[in-house]
Amino acid sequence: MVTIRDVAKEAGVSVATVSRVLNETGYVHEDTRKRVMDTMKELNYSPNEVARSLYKKKSKLIGLLLPDITNPFFPQLARGVEDEMQKQGFRLLFGNSDEQPEKELDYIHTFVQNNVVGIISATNHTSKTNYQDLSIPVVFLDRTSNDYPSVYADGKEGGKIAAEEMVRRGSKRITLLKGPAHIQPAQDRFQGALEYLSQSNVDFHVIATTSFAFEDAEKWAKELFDTYPDTDGVLASNDIVATAVLHEALRLGRSIPTDVQIIGFDDIPQSSLLFPSLSTIRQPAYEMGKEAAALLIKLMRKEPVQQKHIQLPVTFIKRETTREVEIND
Amino acid sequence: MVTIRDVAKEAGVSVATVSRVLNETGYVHEDTRKRVMDTMKELNYSPNEVARSLYKKKSKLIGLLLPDITNPFFPQLARGVEDEMQKQGFRLLFGNSDEQPEKELDYIHTFVQNNVVGIISATNHTSKTNYQDLSIPVVFLDRTSNDYPSVYADGKEGGKIAAEEMVRRGSKRITLLKGPAHIQPAQDRFQGALEYLSQSNVDFHVIATTSFAFEDAEKWAKELFDTYPDTDGVLASNDIVATAVLHEALRLGRSIPTDVQIIGFDDIPQSSLLFPSLSTIRQPAYEMGKEAAALLIKLMRKEPVQQKHIQLPVTFIKRETTREVEIND
Repeated sequence: MVTIRDVAKEAGVSVATVSRVLNETGYVHEDTRKRVMDTMKELNYSPNEVARSLYKKKSKLIGLLLPDITNPFFPQLARGVEDEMQKQGFRLLFGNSDEQPEKELDYIHTFVQNNVVGIISATNHTSKTNYQDLSIPVVFLDRTSNDYPSVYADGKEGGKIAAEEMVRRGSKRITLLKGPAHIQPAQDRFQGALEYLSQSNVDFHVIATTSFAFEDAEKWAKELFDTYPDTDGVLASNDIVATAVLHEALRLGRSIPTDVQIIGFDDIPQSSLLFPSLSTIRQPAYEMGKEAAALLIKLMRKEPVQQKHIQLPVTFIKRETTREVEIND
Repeated sequence: MVTIRDVAKEAGVSVATVSRVLNETGYVHEDTRKRVMDTMKELNYSPNEVARSLYKKKSKLIGLLLPDITNPFFPQLARGVEDEMQKQGFRLLFGNSDEQPEKELDYIHTFVQNNVVGIISATNHTSKTNYQDLSIPVVFLDRTSNDYPSVYADGKEGGKIAAEEMVRRGSKRITLLKGPAHIQPAQDRFQGALEYLSQSNVDFHVIATTSFAFEDAEKWAKELFDTYPDTDGVLASNDIVATAVLHEALRLGRSIPTDVQIIGFDDIPQSSLLFPSLSTIRQPAYEMGKEAAALLIKLMRKEPVQQKHIQLPVTFIKRETTREVEIND
């Protein structure tokens, strides 16, 4: 491995001079600076980032905390963050919290110990305690927060759009699956749908659910068609739950979308791979990741930031689990 | 933030003494050691990991390089690596190479600059050049290598099992989709299937493909049923391709599995969510990730390693795209 000493020797200057060039401190004659730079290039020298980060009190590491990368919504988010960070020369330290506060705390701790210069967190335990003592910028992703900069999709509007599309496409007896109580975005979309349905002239039922796991969702899907067999439209709390409802409806011999319409939430990649493919409300996960990264970079560079709370729009993705409407479709 | 100086002051000892306790070097009286430890606990002091890593020339960081986390096979792998590493106190620096050698090289470079103590790589450009100059252990994951320790599933056996199950379950005119030429595991499973079919008494066709992208796979699925309309069994190069074939077959009104049987490869999470759910060859992705992490940890600790090439078994997962057989099923 090439060291700073090798560079100094080869360029015929002192180690201190190479150090000044590297760290852009003190005076170095332009010719000397060029010679040092050329030598570094020639020898393929790369400064040790850890030593530099200690010297400058700055690293190029970012901490990214997700609930669980195996939940298919999150790889897109992570990829958005990484692509933007990679372009700017930052690297990701990465952890899954499993929504456990102890694991979250543990990761934040080790992020700080490794001198990260910023953190992006997409967890649900964003109580101030974990983050308030940090001296580095934090951006919450897929979560709202009054205290911290955040990037999220408009869940409430998403819920409203889903309900509106379902009513507009002719469902009269709608079942609304309420997502887990501790996941704020799930509650936002539920509220949006609830408000719209309350003001419409259709019948509707609400079924409370406690997770987004497919195995649990299969049970709720059975319960749904057992308890409300005349349901002709289901607003699911996310795409995984919608998939379970779709399976159960097909198993019961219901024709989709003629007998039952289904709308999911998220637009995870596999929703378009279902047969029939799933109509859903799209959250722009990749873009959300990119926006969070861009916002964090601005905060780290202390650039002026107009908007610390960035809300991205959601859209209705019309596929095969909803009916056509005559006009404007 | 609490510093080593604060600890020294509070405990009534010198900074050097605290340092000796921290780094377990030199002699410190047991009473003093206890007082320093208690004070650190009391003040909630945590040593700066970067400073420690520089001092000890060791960090607790591992580099993990994947082709693309948004490919649904990889989050399970990554999760396996992370869970094992997390248990042992290691943290992951993470990057996607997109199978681009420049990106791969760039990530390896920054991993080294950040003093990682080991690397796990699941990329396809494992030519020695990128890795041979490294002074830290490297484990290849989901890839075979003669030169480096590696953890992978038995792809060739998987291809054989898939072909065997398809023939055993009654298909007579099988189409075999050959995966991308540059992805070794895809070629292994193709070879395994090809060898079995060559020795069986069924007709079969081979269609060459160049990617695992769903949009491409949709085209090959159309081509497949256009060119070989009497196909009654499809061995797909992975689950994504199998999903495209399933859709096309359903669109053409084929009854699954009566008219056409389909077997995928990987057992990505969404394969069980399809309707009908997909029969496939399961690669134990999560376990592969864990094994790779455990192997790397052993290598880093210079513990004796019996087996540097760990091949995990694959299994046939019978779901709804294959027929029942009378005996032993």
